[in-house]
Amino acid sequence: MKPKQFVVIGLGRFGSSLALELMDLGYEVLGIDRDEEVVEDMSEFLTHTVVADATDEEVLKSLGIRNFDCGIVAIGDEIQTSILAAILLKESGVATVVAKAISVLHGRALEKLGVDRVIFPERDMGIRVAHQLVTPNLLDYIELSKDYRIVEMTVTDCMDGKTLNELNTRVRYGISVVALNQRSGVIVAPTAMDILRAGDIMVVIGSKENIDRFEGEVVNM
Amino acid sequence: MKPKQFVVIGLGRFGSSLALELMDLGYEVLGIDRDEEVVEDMSEFLTHTVVADATDEEVLKSLGIRNFDCGIVAIGDEIQTSILAAILLKESGVATVVAKAISVLHGRALEKLGVDRVIFPERDMGIRVAHQLVTPNLLDYIELSKDYRIVEMTVTDCMDGKTLNELNTRVRYGISVVALNQRSGVIVAPTAMDILRAGDIMVVIGSKENIDRFEGEVVNM
Amino acid sequence: MKPKQFVVIGLGRFGSSLALELMDLGYEVLGIDRDEEVVEDMSEFLTHTVVADATDEEVLKSLGIRNFDCGIVAIGDEIQTSILAAILLKESGVATVVAKAISVLHGRALEKLGVDRVIFPERDMGIRVAHQLVTPNLLDYIELSKDYRIVEMTVTDCMDGKTLNELNTRVRYGISVVALNQRSGVIVAPTAMDILRAGDIMVVIGSKENIDRFEGEVVNM
Amino acid sequence: MKPKQFVVIGLGRFGSSLALELMDLGYEVLGIDRDEEVVEDMSEFLTHTVVADATDEEVLKSLGIRNFDCGIVAIGDEIQTSILAAILLKESGVATVVAKAISVLHGRALEKLGVDRVIFPERDMGIRVAHQLVTPNLLDYIELSKDYRIVEMTVTDCMDGKTLNELNTRVRYGISVVALNQRSGVIVAPTAMDILRAGDIMVVIGSKENIDRFEGEVVNM
Amino acid sequence: MKPKQFVVIGLGRFGSSLALELMDLGYEVLGIDRDEEVVEDMSEFLTHTVVADATDEEVLKSLGIRNFDCGIVAIGDEIQTSILAAILLKESGVATVVAKAISVLHGRALEKLGVDRVIFPERDMGIRVAHQLVTPNLLDYIELSKDYRIVEMTVTDCMDGKTLNELNTRVRYGISVVALNQRSGVIVAPTAMDILRAGDIMVVIGSKENIDRFEGEVVNM
Amino acid sequence: MKPKQFVVIGLGRFGSSLALELMDLGYEVLGIDRDEEVVEDMSEFLTHTVVADATDEEVLKSLGIRNFDCGIVAIGDEIQTSILAAILLKESGVATVVAKAISVLHGRALEKLGVDRVIFPERDMGIRVAHQLVTPNLLDYIELSKDYRIVEMTVTDCMDGKTLNELNTRVRYGISVVALNQRSGVIVAPTAMDILRAGDIMVVIGSKENIDRFEGEVVNM
Amino acid sequence: MKPKQFVVIGLGRFGSSLALELMDLGYEVLGIDRDEEVVEDMSEFLTHTVVADATDEEVLKSLGIRNFDCGIVAIGDEIQTSILAAILLKESGVATVVAKAISVLHGRALEKLGVDRVIFPERDMGIRVAHQLVTPNLLDYIELSKDYRIVEMTVTDCMDGKTLNELNTRVRYGISVVALNQRSGVIVAPTAMDILRAGDIMVVIGSKENIDRFEGEVVNM
Amino acid sequence: MKPKQFVVIGLGRFGSSLALELMDLGYEVLGIDRDEEVVEDMSEFLTHTVVADATDEEVLKSLGIRNFDCGIVAIGDEIQTSILAAILLKESGVATVVAKAISVLHGRALEKLGVDRVIFPERDMGIRVAHQLVTPNLLDYIELSKDYRIVEMTVTDCMDGKTLNELNTRVRYGISVVALNQRSGVIVAPTAMDILRAGDIMVVIGSKENIDRFEGEVVNM
Repeated sequence: MKPKQFVVIGLGRFGSSLALELMDLGYEVLGIDRDEEVVEDMSEFLTHTVVADATDEEVLKSLGIRNFDCGIVAIGDEIQTSILAAILLKESGVATVVAKAISVLHGRALEKLGVDRVIFPERDMGIRVAHQLVTPNLLDYIELSKDYRIVEMTVTDCMDGKTLNELNTRVRYGISVVALNQRSGVIVAPTAMDILRAGDIMVVIGSKENIDRFEGEVVNM
Repeated sequence: MKPKQFVVIGLGRFGSSLALELMDLGYEVLGIDRDEEVVEDMSEFLTHTVVADATDEEVLKSLGIRNFDCGIVAIGDEIQTSILAAILLKESGVATVVAKAISVLHGRALEKLGVDRVIFPERDMGIRVAHQLVTPNLLDYIELSKDYRIVEMTVTDCMDGKTLNELNTRVRYGISVVALNQRSGVIVAPTAMDILRAGDIMVVIGSKENIDRFEGEVVNM
Repeated sequence: MKPKQFVVIGLGRFGSSLALELMDLGYEVLGIDRDEEVVEDMSEFLTHTVVADATDEEVLKSLGIRNFDCGIVAIGDEIQTSILAAILLKESGVATVVAKAISVLHGRALEKLGVDRVIFPERDMGIRVAHQLVTPNLLDYIELSKDYRIVEMTVTDCMDGKTLNELNTRVRYGISVVALNQRSGVIVAPTAMDILRAGDIMVVIGSKENIDRFEGEVVNM
Repeated sequence: MKPKQFVVIGLGRFGSSLALELMDLGYEVLGIDRDEEVVEDMSEFLTHTVVADATDEEVLKSLGIRNFDCGIVAIGDEIQTSILAAILLKESGVATVVAKAISVLHGRALEKLGVDRVIFPERDMGIRVAHQLVTPNLLDYIELSKDYRIVEMTVTDCMDGKTLNELNTRVRYGISVVALNQRSGVIVAPTAMDILRAGDIMVVIGSKENIDRFEGEVVNM
Repeated sequence: MKPKQFVVIGLGRFGSSLALELMDLGYEVLGIDRDEEVVEDMSEFLTHTVVADATDEEVLKSLGIRNFDCGIVAIGDEIQTSILAAILLKESGVATVVAKAISVLHGRALEKLGVDRVIFPERDMGIRVAHQLVTPNLLDYIELSKDYRIVEMTVTDCMDGKTLNELNTRVRYGISVVALNQRSGVIVAPTAMDILRAGDIMVVIGSKENIDRFEGEVVNM
Repeated sequence: MKPKQFVVIGLGRFGSSLALELMDLGYEVLGIDRDEEVVEDMSEFLTHTVVADATDEEVLKSLGIRNFDCGIVAIGDEIQTSILAAILLKESGVATVVAKAISVLHGRALEKLGVDRVIFPERDMGIRVAHQLVTPNLLDYIELSKDYRIVEMTVTDCMDGKTLNELNTRVRYGISVVALNQRSGVIVAPTAMDILRAGDIMVVIGSKENIDRFEGEVVNM
Repeated sequence: MKPKQFVVIGLGRFGSSLALELMDLGYEVLGIDRDEEVVEDMSEFLTHTVVADATDEEVLKSLGIRNFDCGIVAIGDEIQTSILAAILLKESGVATVVAKAISVLHGRALEKLGVDRVIFPERDMGIRVAHQLVTPNLLDYIELSKDYRIVEMTVTDCMDGKTLNELNTRVRYGISVVALNQRSGVIVAPTAMDILRAGDIMVVIGSKENIDRFEGEVVNM
Repeated sequence: MKPKQFVVIGLGRFGSSLALELMDLGYEVLGIDRDEEVVEDMSEFLTHTVVADATDEEVLKSLGIRNFDCGIVAIGDEIQTSILAAILLKESGVATVVAKAISVLHGRALEKLGVDRVIFPERDMGIRVAHQLVTPNLLDYIELSKDYRIVEMTVTDCMDGKTLNELNTRVRYGISVVALNQRSGVIVAPTAMDILRAGDIMVVIGSKENIDRFEGEVVNM
């Protein structure tokens, strides 16, 4: 079953962004932070907010933490508080506990303590941005496997006016175009006759090697 | 043309992760940080590393900053240093300057100063994780447009053993399966006869609304 | 049109002196500072005073900043706050934004962000005092051009009792006496018969070189 | 006699600017500061620089302070150090001692201790900038007496093409134009036939009241 | 098998006392602390000492930590360092890991991470001292079960000169005297004829209730 | 006479544990600490609690300190406060004053000032734990004399099923078994026919040397 | 005329001791300190006490400082506050201003500012104690001139029972006994027949050299 | 026997002044302070100086502290260090230990620990200055008993030209003049014919009451 009620501990940049998005998606969120000012700033956007020390078992109990489906420990830089809060969430019976780690060792401690999922936001975003930098028209991507990728990229000038048939990516590069986002709307499974326009967005699937070759020869010309 | 040489200012969690990934992708990276210990830790992994104050114009000049294609200002929490370093990179003629922002106002300042791309790693990762939390079998996704999405998800037990034909997602939910990642390998554009196995990964494309409906009725049963 | 309403952000020595002088000149001034004590000290002298964080957009809006003709960012040593406050003033539509800079790079950032005028009070006053020190009877001066100056100086003992005719500065030094400030009052465009008295103040106009020569031969004898 | 050798104690923004200008004017300057980094930065621009505590009598003696004609105490915010350094300069026989004050009481202490001239850079610059803000075309001014002023201002569009005769400032406003700075050069004591061009700079002399009236009716139209 | 080689992380009061006693007992001890001075003070008393950060995996590896039989995490007040060091010891394969905890929650975290034994020195000593305070002639005791105790106590004046027979503790109080420590030496299993002398030490065994009664009626008279 | 009323100064880990145990044992305890939060946490568990500076003579008087039988100075790390509080307790006439020391010199100062008993909790617990570590089945022990000991230990697998007769410790090792703690209860002075079970607890008395030999040959096999 | 009303600025150890003694001598004392707690402690012992910043001219005026006969600046270690407070006292018209100095340069600054008397308590007491240490039976002394002294000393055992005649100090050492303090009372100008008793106190007058000789030969035998 | 060798621990204002005076009086002084700069400043004035922690027993031993006759603990504000250093001096066998106290309780602790003499420099100097303030011509005084005093005072104008006979202090006020310090030298036991001159110094002996009356009627007229 999908979780319905979330508790987010730590309302810094990562925690508050996550909490706000959960609210947007229609879920109930309890936000907890030790900093009064931070909590006040978030109070009008979340279902509930509390100024509290997340390592104080009594406090968590009195907040009815055990009734939440999912707890996110989004504490900034204090490994200690992160670890103790994670233990308390697990012990109180929260079904899913997710925690942000700031170092590999921190991550290992969280996993050993039974945290269901450990996240490294800064590290992961660093990797993601690196890929975008070396492929300037790369917008986003999904790593399908060690070899395969789905890549969202901008249609560049040199492709402007060409049909997919002319581009012939499947034959020449072994990659398929699975979608186009044009001014007129999104085309799922475009046909060979669809015409590319510079500035359109195309989504291709293929092996990394083939996509790299396509980028080298066509996209970045 | 694709950038070939990168300078990364600030080697914290985000900056170092980005720099290491750029090295992995085969590029040259100069890493700069004010903290001697941090620089020493990274020195064996990057092309060059320097302990320097990135707001000291003379220092940046002496490092030949103007010869770099792309500069990334990955400074942690000091808005001031981030802004001054970004100005110096832009003025020295670095073609592309990317900078990490820690607040909306910080981001606006960077844009006004001509920074080519402003990144909010913690905020963006918060949003991404929120989506994954509310859809536990969601692995990754690409926002194609305001309405359309490509979603990578786990095949759940209730789909186990079914052919795509039986699932009939295009007719029943208006979404297409564009790829499958099975133990035997990735299948691009799978046929109606391909059989799903619990634990496989499937990539679908469709409107958010339709994907949500599919998840609600089939995936999360 | 001349500005009528001023907002001064930062009420340190420079900001408070500027705000008080604007009040003296008959204008309305809103003073903002983060320090409660500082604001209290100024509250009886300015039209309005507020304890506020000038980087908080909501706060500035609630103060109706966009209705002010001119905003002065007189923040002391925090480059970051200075930059963010300047952006907010510009974006809110204040016609003229003036900001104090504490370094060349800070000044460059402010200019790039669209600040209309950047001031370096300590630097400028340092230059002004240097000139007065090397010419002890120099009281004040205006740089008319790279070569020309108007100089206000004390009449020294060696000129005491002489008429302007006897001094004959136009012929001997190529400089004109444009005004005299004597015990009896100011004489604009004095005649050749006006007699100088030690302690009087004279204003001369001429090239720097000539004024220097006059000082060297007559004034500092 | 004019001073030839200067010692500047405190090389912050005010002190360093003053010291550099003195160098530019051709004098010898010894710069003293407690901060090693600050001294290093200035060492190539001043005749001599020393890292020293200016309240240590022995140190000042060993630097031969008594041989300097003029000492400037440009210490930032430490009233105590400023006062003790000023005493030592006076006692060591430096002919002229000038000191920067940061408050009225600080200024009074310096005067009582025999300091020859007390300067309030931030306060004075605040006043000066206030005048420029309320008269946007005011460039600079000299306070001749409580009532009289010499003002350097920009010629505005509404005066463009007019002769001084047409403007007739002496009759209509009781003020005299003593100089013009035009593209072709500076004109001292311009004639009635000289034509004003927008963007030229004019210097006028008159009572404050009259200059204000002139500005209100002609300049700021 | 009994451990032979010990590594003690944290050489504060608890850690150093433990390490020194292990040395006295004839074992080899490696002492690690981040504080150079602390390490220097202990260096002549332990087999090996190292200044190191116990959360740095590389450092622990280079010290050959995996060859130690038993690791004691005796870190003072930093829960974070204590937890990370404990993980590293466990993962490196040290057979027995013992750690000091400073709070109940800290203790729970250590246990969850697989620490073999968690010690609360201040808490345990507090309990032990409480017992000694309320029974002034209590020297030491062993809690045999919830009800039974072995107690070492001083023979008081009122027992002086009596034989165990006269005291008749087994019949009158249900407690047995298992040993006497007299000036002439220790008597194990004393006979009924042995005579008690004030200042001797006696060891009795019995239920808490009975021992309390004995104390109340005989010992503390 | 046994003390009835205790005052504990300093409610840190040691002090609070001691105070709580005294309450458990049925005594009245006044707890004093300078930290409001600490006092609040303990207030529901102790007879009385006060936020006070224990070096303020007036305060101690107003609390009626002289009516207490026993005072415990359990102050953490401030030698100064510990010493001054100890003096005040002694001078106010508290019969027994016990104080925690954190260094040998601190302990010496306390003794010279007349403190009745000085405790080194961390040091003593370090020694105790060292013994348990080198003898893994050692549970607790009493040092009867320089040579003799009473030791509580776990019955190991190799003794399982044996009678005390078979073990024959008195003859083979010169040690006596004075008690057994079995599932069925504690047996004081067990007979030769009593059968040992792995996991039982046995208490033996003997010389250190003999007990060591017994452990080496039988227990740790 | 003798001062009647005193204001003491700074109620540290020196200031409070001085203020209390003035109260004991029957004078009115206003005590001022910035520290609320310090002022509260003194409030019941002085005529008036105020928590105030002694460098705030308005505050001093509102306290009617100009009505006091004598002001003592007893500020601890802040030279700056001491100097500014001293200026304000002098300017407000207090007849006598006394100030404590903590260094020679500080003392010089106070004198230049017109302070009537500068005191160095720690330095002066250091000198006084040095004399007492080298002459253990010296109780107090007055420096009459560079050569002459009046010394109060204990009568030692070797003088016990002797008459002044026998001691014959005037002839043998050139010193006169001007007073004796015996159990029966003080004897001014004792006669030759007065008998000394060990433990009595004698006051002698003479040259330092002679007194030293007397001490060496008689007193310290 | 008089002490010959002194060790002064703590070279602040009091300690350094005391140490320097001891040197002046011809004794050997070892100065110890923890502050390297302080020690360096004193090193050329004392027999020996050492940078050391006076609570480190090993260090004191290695300095041969036990060979000193007298130790002075002149430590500033750290009660703890003062107490521990005093213990070490006493235990090492220094014959006389003198210590400065900063509070009554601190003084009591020092006395209990066996310190031979406790000094309160700030308090004592406060009392002494109070007396001088209320009697402006009082120069110094010795408290002979609760009632009697020896007072050194300035001869005022109203006594100028009078003989001691005319003044007739013994009859009129019951006080004796024991010495005069005149321009021509010190007169011990002046005669009735000696003439007083304003500015001379006179030493009188008498009861406090009588001296007060003399001051009121004659001196302060």
